[in-house]
Amino acid sequence: MNAHHQEADLGTPAVTATLAEWVVNLQAPDIPAEVRREGLRTFVNWVGCAVGGAAHETAEHALKAFTPFSGSKTSTVLGRRERLDPAHAALMNGITSHVLDYDDTHLKTILHPAGPVASALLALAETRPVSGTDFLTALIAGVEAECRIANCVYPDHYDRGWHITGTAGVFGAAAAVGRMIGLDAQQMRWALGLAASQSSGLREMFGTMTKSFHPGIAARNGMMSALLAEAGFDSSERAIEAPRGFAQVMSDKQDWDEITEGLGTRWEAATNSYKPFACGIVIHPAIDGCIQLREEMGEAKVAQIASVRLRTHPLVLELTGRKSPKTELEGKFSVYHCASVALLHGDGAPTAFTDAIVNDPQVVALRGLIEAETNPDCHEASVDIEVTLRDGSTHAKHVERAIGSAEKPLTDAQLNTKFTDQAELVVGAETARALCDLCWSLEILSDAAEVARASTPEKG
Amino acid sequence: MNAHHQEADLGTPAVTATLAEWVVNLQAPDIPAEVRREGLRTFVNWVGCAVGGAAHETAEHALKAFTPFSGSKTSTVLGRRERLDPAHAALMNGITSHVLDYDDTHLKTILHPAGPVASALLALAETRPVSGTDFLTALIAGVEAECRIANCVYPDHYDRGWHITGTAGVFGAAAAVGRMIGLDAQQMRWALGLAASQSSGLREMFGTMTKSFHPGIAARNGMMSALLAEAGFDSSERAIEAPRGFAQVMSDKQDWDEITEGLGTRWEAATNSYKPFACGIVIHPAIDGCIQLREEMGEAKVAQIASVRLRTHPLVLELTGRKSPKTELEGKFSVYHCASVALLHGDGAPTAFTDAIVNDPQVVALRGLIEAETNPDCHEASVDIEVTLRDGSTHAKHVERAIGSAEKPLTDAQLNTKFTDQAELVVGAETARALCDLCWSLEILSDAAEVARASTPEKG
Repeated sequence: MNAHHQEADLGTPAVTATLAEWVVNLQAPDIPAEVRREGLRTFVNWVGCAVGGAAHETAEHALKAFTPFSGSKTSTVLGRRERLDPAHAALMNGITSHVLDYDDTHLKTILHPAGPVASALLALAETRPVSGTDFLTALIAGVEAECRIANCVYPDHYDRGWHITGTAGVFGAAAAVGRMIGLDAQQMRWALGLAASQSSGLREMFGTMTKSFHPGIAARNGMMSALLAEAGFDSSERAIEAPRGFAQVMSDKQDWDEITEGLGTRWEAATNSYKPFACGIVIHPAIDGCIQLREEMGEAKVAQIASVRLRTHPLVLELTGRKSPKTELEGKFSVYHCASVALLHGDGAPTAFTDAIVNDPQVVALRGLIEAETNPDCHEASVDIEVTLRDGSTHAKHVERAIGSAEKPLTDAQLNTKFTDQAELVVGAETARALCDLCWSLEILSDAAEVARASTPEKG
Repeated sequence: MNAHHQEADLGTPAVTATLAEWVVNLQAPDIPAEVRREGLRTFVNWVGCAVGGAAHETAEHALKAFTPFSGSKTSTVLGRRERLDPAHAALMNGITSHVLDYDDTHLKTILHPAGPVASALLALAETRPVSGTDFLTALIAGVEAECRIANCVYPDHYDRGWHITGTAGVFGAAAAVGRMIGLDAQQMRWALGLAASQSSGLREMFGTMTKSFHPGIAARNGMMSALLAEAGFDSSERAIEAPRGFAQVMSDKQDWDEITEGLGTRWEAATNSYKPFACGIVIHPAIDGCIQLREEMGEAKVAQIASVRLRTHPLVLELTGRKSPKTELEGKFSVYHCASVALLHGDGAPTAFTDAIVNDPQVVALRGLIEAETNPDCHEASVDIEVTLRDGSTHAKHVERAIGSAEKPLTDAQLNTKFTDQAELVVGAETARALCDLCWSLEILSDAAEVARASTPEKG
């Protein structure tokens, strides 16, 4: 133990034990109604995204590699006909729920909470039945655990290059599954230790299929951490705070209070948000504003556009300044593409990012008329847009806070539209609608796994 | 990308691509005879350790959790009757080969190279047949890759708290399996990228079952990285050197030349070493010296000992200064226990570390007569021992370099004894001897997996 580590050990609070005990003892009535409601919205949004991403080529490649290794095929790959063992189903659902960049976001840390947690829970629920109420309690426990652990090390951990959805997500999956299967406090500490030793995922993978792999392996590895602990496989009981534990090895910043302060009264799980558009959040104000402009000036005038000027937060061009995207993934990193499709089609859903639409001549042509500049005073959730038509007339739009931001969350109705719009392309309109309704009824289901089974695509 | 990352990106050599190309193109005749011989010794030692650890309770707990998730049971859990799919068999063999702290050591980085690499290769070889020669080539490629990647980031990476056998080992497994199944260069880069995103394992887990879990998951995850790449699942192609890649995120020190310089001429795989005793290396000189003293002064005089004084390298007491161990694991961290058992029984094998022997009254009594002091001038592989008998006579021993050190490697005959001594307790004497012989004949086997199947325990 070197000097740095020894010093760091003095006076470190036992956050692993405190968190484990809280998760183990959490009961449904301990969770305020508005927190349960947000947990339910998290679940609905996650199922829609997992089904929406189920036909993506990333899923095809993963299935090809993993299927020969599957145990008894008890668990549903959401939105597909294939079934796999719970660990592999969790892995697949974690991938598909993230692959369209359309999932939920814990805005404080840019963690996508549901992928690791819900993927693990639902896949295991198909072999270890659980009521919808208990399922939701476990989901909220897992989301709370991972968001608090993420808060502890953010932003240094993320800035260093860790994909926090993978690194913190594995703790969420372990905590949630551990709660669902009834681990005791010591087993829960072991589960968090096993999760810590599997915490991984590098931001270098952004722009490749391996990015979506991260929530998948976080789900699988977190689930297996809980199951190993249940089987008596031991681990460190202070894996988060120890000198050679997660937070000190994987971050130069640790704020232990973020993990333990106000447990049960301050709820990170209640701050979850849902993307209205299938791309990174920085680009959302521009899409929102262009869709509003299109509605206000009328679709016919879009063909008359001579130029478009965007004034945005500087991060927008830093992250999404790609001028001539050629592929789905590149389109998600081009504010020009996004604005063009939003003006032409009013679209920011996954359908706005297909390879075909990215290379559509009309979209490409309008893209060329769009200029963007940065304004350091612009809020991250704001944008100013000015459209000039060929006749010289102008239409302007100021977005103060984009849809989906903390101040302007998606309504339940908007979540439904998001759900069915993406899911019906994969499983058919009728199944999508019925599945969405079933998700909202989670708390009255005697068997939460009904949701998984109801996601099988319509024949034909 | 922050300033640090941007700066770090300038002029970074493409080490991932260089290493991938080397691994893909490596052929058996490119490997000098003495390197192949050391690879064979690595393999023999690894099989002995995996069989020797197969009955450990850590394996029982892991099997209990993982067996329900196994796919087609094609692959052998070495030294046991159970079979699992290749991924789970790799995981189990990685665990058992490390659980007795008896495996191989790359002395420069304290990496244990064979666990991740050989565990992945042999388990997969049972479903994708490969000749012994090709198997050995892949094994050496994987060991070379992981040791070079470890060199690149050692010591900062290890000092920070990473268990390098897990974090670097996953690359070795990916490279070896990728070589064995014939990935092309791009697929190999992807495989290394997928490995980078699964690189994990914290030193906090030392002293728990999760320590042995690290080579197990490195084996499984590395294998699946190669199989995913084969199935078209893409990843970063510069995962080791990128600003947000493995080496820059997980270490503050990077020496790129360690990865690429002298590939094919300077062989890290030829520097592998094998433990004569089932515990950490720092304690080996004391055990070696005590066994020699026992032989020189005669077993009868051990009962006459009044006091023992050890003068050791300072690390010995820092790491293994435990005075009153109570368990197997604590015994491994007590130089007093080790010296006592070595004097009484001439033993440093796994049999010297059972819970029973750690609590044996005779062993405990002699332990109380042993004093240790540190000598800053003492070499890590040296020790001075002075025994005083009740009649006042003394016996002294200076160990210049302990057995198993770089200067005094185990002979083939000593490897055989190590193999059969530990394996016969698990699979029976006859099977142990036959299996050991079969391992040495690896290069003439048309099917390397014969070795796995020959490890099944005798009936009875």
